[in-house]
Amino acid sequence: MTSSTAGRLPRIGYLGPPGTFTEMALLRLPEAETCEAVPCPSVDAALARVRAGELDSAVVAIENSVEGGVSATLDGLAVGAPLHLVGEVLVPIRFVLAARPGTRMEDIRAVSTHSHAWAQVRGWMARNLPTATFLPALSNAAAAADLAGETDVPFQAAVCPQIAADRHGLVPLADDIGDIPDAVTRFVVAARPGRLPLPTGADKTTVVLSQRDDRPGGLLGLLEQFAARGINLTRIESRPTKHSLGSYSFSVDLEGHVEDERVGETLMGLRRICAEVRFLGSYPRADRRPAEIDPDHDDAAYVSARAWLDGLRARTA
Amino acid sequence: MTSSTAGRLPRIGYLGPPGTFTEMALLRLPEAETCEAVPCPSVDAALARVRAGELDSAVVAIENSVEGGVSATLDGLAVGAPLHLVGEVLVPIRFVLAARPGTRMEDIRAVSTHSHAWAQVRGWMARNLPTATFLPALSNAAAAADLAGETDVPFQAAVCPQIAADRHGLVPLADDIGDIPDAVTRFVVAARPGRLPLPTGADKTTVVLSQRDDRPGGLLGLLEQFAARGINLTRIESRPTKHSLGSYSFSVDLEGHVEDERVGETLMGLRRICAEVRFLGSYPRADRRPAEIDPDHDDAAYVSARAWLDGLRARTA
Amino acid sequence: MTSSTAGRLPRIGYLGPPGTFTEMALLRLPEAETCEAVPCPSVDAALARVRAGELDSAVVAIENSVEGGVSATLDGLAVGAPLHLVGEVLVPIRFVLAARPGTRMEDIRAVSTHSHAWAQVRGWMARNLPTATFLPALSNAAAAADLAGETDVPFQAAVCPQIAADRHGLVPLADDIGDIPDAVTRFVVAARPGRLPLPTGADKTTVVLSQRDDRPGGLLGLLEQFAARGINLTRIESRPTKHSLGSYSFSVDLEGHVEDERVGETLMGLRRICAEVRFLGSYPRADRRPAEIDPDHDDAAYVSARAWLDGLRARTA
Amino acid sequence: MTSSTAGRLPRIGYLGPPGTFTEMALLRLPEAETCEAVPCPSVDAALARVRAGELDSAVVAIENSVEGGVSATLDGLAVGAPLHLVGEVLVPIRFVLAARPGTRMEDIRAVSTHSHAWAQVRGWMARNLPTATFLPALSNAAAAADLAGETDVPFQAAVCPQIAADRHGLVPLADDIGDIPDAVTRFVVAARPGRLPLPTGADKTTVVLSQRDDRPGGLLGLLEQFAARGINLTRIESRPTKHSLGSYSFSVDLEGHVEDERVGETLMGLRRICAEVRFLGSYPRADRRPAEIDPDHDDAAYVSARAWLDGLRARTA
Repeated sequence: MTSSTAGRLPRIGYLGPPGTFTEMALLRLPEAETCEAVPCPSVDAALARVRAGELDSAVVAIENSVEGGVSATLDGLAVGAPLHLVGEVLVPIRFVLAARPGTRMEDIRAVSTHSHAWAQVRGWMARNLPTATFLPALSNAAAAADLAGETDVPFQAAVCPQIAADRHGLVPLADDIGDIPDAVTRFVVAARPGRLPLPTGADKTTVVLSQRDDRPGGLLGLLEQFAARGINLTRIESRPTKHSLGSYSFSVDLEGHVEDERVGETLMGLRRICAEVRFLGSYPRADRRPAEIDPDHDDAAYVSARAWLDGLRARTA
Repeated sequence: MTSSTAGRLPRIGYLGPPGTFTEMALLRLPEAETCEAVPCPSVDAALARVRAGELDSAVVAIENSVEGGVSATLDGLAVGAPLHLVGEVLVPIRFVLAARPGTRMEDIRAVSTHSHAWAQVRGWMARNLPTATFLPALSNAAAAADLAGETDVPFQAAVCPQIAADRHGLVPLADDIGDIPDAVTRFVVAARPGRLPLPTGADKTTVVLSQRDDRPGGLLGLLEQFAARGINLTRIESRPTKHSLGSYSFSVDLEGHVEDERVGETLMGLRRICAEVRFLGSYPRADRRPAEIDPDHDDAAYVSARAWLDGLRARTA
Repeated sequence: MTSSTAGRLPRIGYLGPPGTFTEMALLRLPEAETCEAVPCPSVDAALARVRAGELDSAVVAIENSVEGGVSATLDGLAVGAPLHLVGEVLVPIRFVLAARPGTRMEDIRAVSTHSHAWAQVRGWMARNLPTATFLPALSNAAAAADLAGETDVPFQAAVCPQIAADRHGLVPLADDIGDIPDAVTRFVVAARPGRLPLPTGADKTTVVLSQRDDRPGGLLGLLEQFAARGINLTRIESRPTKHSLGSYSFSVDLEGHVEDERVGETLMGLRRICAEVRFLGSYPRADRRPAEIDPDHDDAAYVSARAWLDGLRARTA
Repeated sequence: MTSSTAGRLPRIGYLGPPGTFTEMALLRLPEAETCEAVPCPSVDAALARVRAGELDSAVVAIENSVEGGVSATLDGLAVGAPLHLVGEVLVPIRFVLAARPGTRMEDIRAVSTHSHAWAQVRGWMARNLPTATFLPALSNAAAAADLAGETDVPFQAAVCPQIAADRHGLVPLADDIGDIPDAVTRFVVAARPGRLPLPTGADKTTVVLSQRDDRPGGLLGLLEQFAARGINLTRIESRPTKHSLGSYSFSVDLEGHVEDERVGETLMGLRRICAEVRFLGSYPRADRRPAEIDPDHDDAAYVSARAWLDGLRARTA
């Protein structure tokens, strides 16, 4: 199977089953209505199927306003055959307490959901269902599906997004039960390296930087590369290199597109001083907020400076 | 209930049930044999009970060589009533496939464990039990306990540490089945602020740094405070502030003890330029590796420089 | 002879003879009317006589808005027995073309002055006295004195400050003949280390920094010490160390007084990383312009940060 | 008059009269034997005549191991029509006490030389001719010429280089009388912008950097541009801008040639953030010492990084 889409719809993977926040993210893509959405059992599986050419791309969570970076995604992108991010989507994280029609609050003795979701509603549960038991599920959507299924299950409610309740004919007994208001998860679309999205003026670039062991200065030296070209970071996370605690690489999102002069020069600078720079793509920001570029470092400043330098060099015999 | 230990053993909480890696960490503490080990249902619950005075301290995972920082712990320490870290423990993460005596590999159709553990043995499972189903459990130890219990369960094996198998009379069908060799988790001991451990020459200090919104320079400015005093970082992670994606605080481990001159001056510098510096304690390193201190920045250099400055200032009328 | 001023006026040296810009600087000192002004043949001689106790202090030029740092002064302060700067004075540099009464412009065939002064009026001379010859003098004031003296001299005019013309009964044929408008020279008062002037809120501190040969980072490392404490520099000059071209020390003026917390901590930081820090004093600015202190780094911020640190440390057993 | 050398020898100016250290520098140039050496009355005059096309180039002192930067040269290059430096020469500064044949030490009652030379032999004079008077001269060579001339002069000895004594038939009564051993002056050859010397692997580049008034960070920001590309500075001097004390530009020599990748990128970076970058040329080092280039920043590293970047950008639609 190849990545050619001739004669068929593009296939986009997501963390299934249907009804997950990841599916919600997929449905917000412009191409949502003209693609085949393919549920996958894990982030790793989705990325593997993109690498293998079975999928054209995959939607994966990369960062959560509550939990921070999503390890499975960050690590899945950082090793293995190269993948490029070609888009991002923001999804508000809003949980409902879903049950079969007719269920009353006082009927609920056990609740099922993914352990991450449970962590985010624990406060509400303590106040509203203090005696309910938690039963871990493979995913929020799986909990909803199981509850709606024909088989008998030992729980009476599921914590899931509204979309999962809708899909399975469940009704919300309570809405917006997350302990943190305004939680948002950021998803990215990962594909095999192909054409990069064009610059829009409101772009992000994602890279993984691995330091050399023998480099003094460390992170300060890396940040000077950004500072010398006026680049803003929007996310930075040290990641263990898996060899040992204390040895790190850095996963970084920066404002701008690889086609921007200042971004290109910064990436070259990082490439020179790092053991490895893994480029994970340049793509439009979900929030469409244009980059704040210091006039010292916009493309016009680069073009002008290069013309000046070329003039100086033209004099060399 | 108070934190007084008069007439009773100190009570130390951990993520239960018995048989977790966290219990293994607790058992490695010097005070393990003279304390009461109290299992808790979650990291949050353990920290809350320490804050409430029901426990004297709690052992919690803070960093994993595979997954990176443990969000629940980092965030649980970063907000709420202050807690101080008073020790750290490293535990090798080694999983066994445990079953009731007499079980054979070919009998296994389903396996239960915590979803984090499952993520770390997925490769081994794909090779050795490709058709087995995964059933999520509240914890690795809970999976082992349930398997050993009287009730019938729909799985024939649990992925757990050896200690959990031992405790519940299970036998290992396979050992060391993690996909990443040499995985290690770092645990810390959190207590209500009291006496800090004395400096040993091989210490760490943990802080959470919140930037001011209006500060240009950002992380570079913070790192200059460390660089100006020759301080090495052993971990740095940006953490979302929970207000919005893109607004961060930094969780940092640095080499040295708050009693060290260079650490004290650095903390004061950070305190001046940050919106908030949350001090989470100074404590002996688990690996006992002495800090590598540039002679420019050791205590003797500070004492000498201060004596010199005092001499200059003594001349002011 | 000692430095005791008991029973006699303080003796302040200056670059003589009477009528120099340096004498003008001395006359602007608050103590001008209650001191004995002692002309000296050179900056070196003036500093040597202060060191020897023959003078209480000396007024010397340190920086010129046209020429930059005054080497003789910078180097005279950087080596030898320590001296401290206790004040500064700014003097506008304004030259007159002085002659004996009755002289007309067309009578002038040769002009005498110090070679430095000649360099600053060369444009005016080329336009107004293009055929006049230049005869170098020991000082501007000496040229005026010689012209006014009884002995016949081979020149008809002197370039000097108005004060020198006045003293010697000469008249100005032209005023303000310098090629650079608004030229100013900055003078300092050097004394043996004694009581430092009290902080006024508008102070400068002068230091000479010698780097270690084996230090990577060099000047950047020094500047980070200033930046980490929010210190502004008002002058920095690399100075050859006299051992070889390419080996430098740095002569620096910074805003603030050694009694200021941020200045004290910066000096200690420099002392730790430099081969030598030579403190040349803290003294009120001539222009009385208060230091612009970032609130992050004012004394209150230091006091608050130290109180916080002391609170943390109080917990160490 | 044009700069064409067709049918005539190139004309190279120097600070005259014959017998100066500057003439010594000129005689060390490779082209010394095939040029016309033209004495000029001042550095300004020499540079003006190059700008006017009357001279092909001029040899001027730029830095002295005792005195530091030579203001007249630094400022003469920093303003006015552009000039480029095309070479440098190092000359040991060694003074003799020269007199007419037959003169004995005890005959000397007055000594003439330039005031700068006098400053450098004052120690020797104090020990060996403590009663001799100093008579300032237009230059060391002029003092020698006058002493050798037919007219009677009121001094019996001149302080000058050996070359000046030789030229005028004077004999050295004492050699190497400078107070600082191993003093060296660095001279540069300034020409109208034309062909730059080719890179030799042991080059210097000289620039003048003017900061923007509204830039925070100041010198630290400039130095980060050098640090991010691994550029070593061999000289840096703040220079007053002539507008006011406290407003500076920086005169900088750096290792490398404008054709070097790292130098070109650094110059572009400076150009973007500075109010003005005045390029004063790239030229072979007099000492032929190859630049110490960190392998991270050599041309091969740039070529490799650019190829990598081009590969990334090739994917943009």
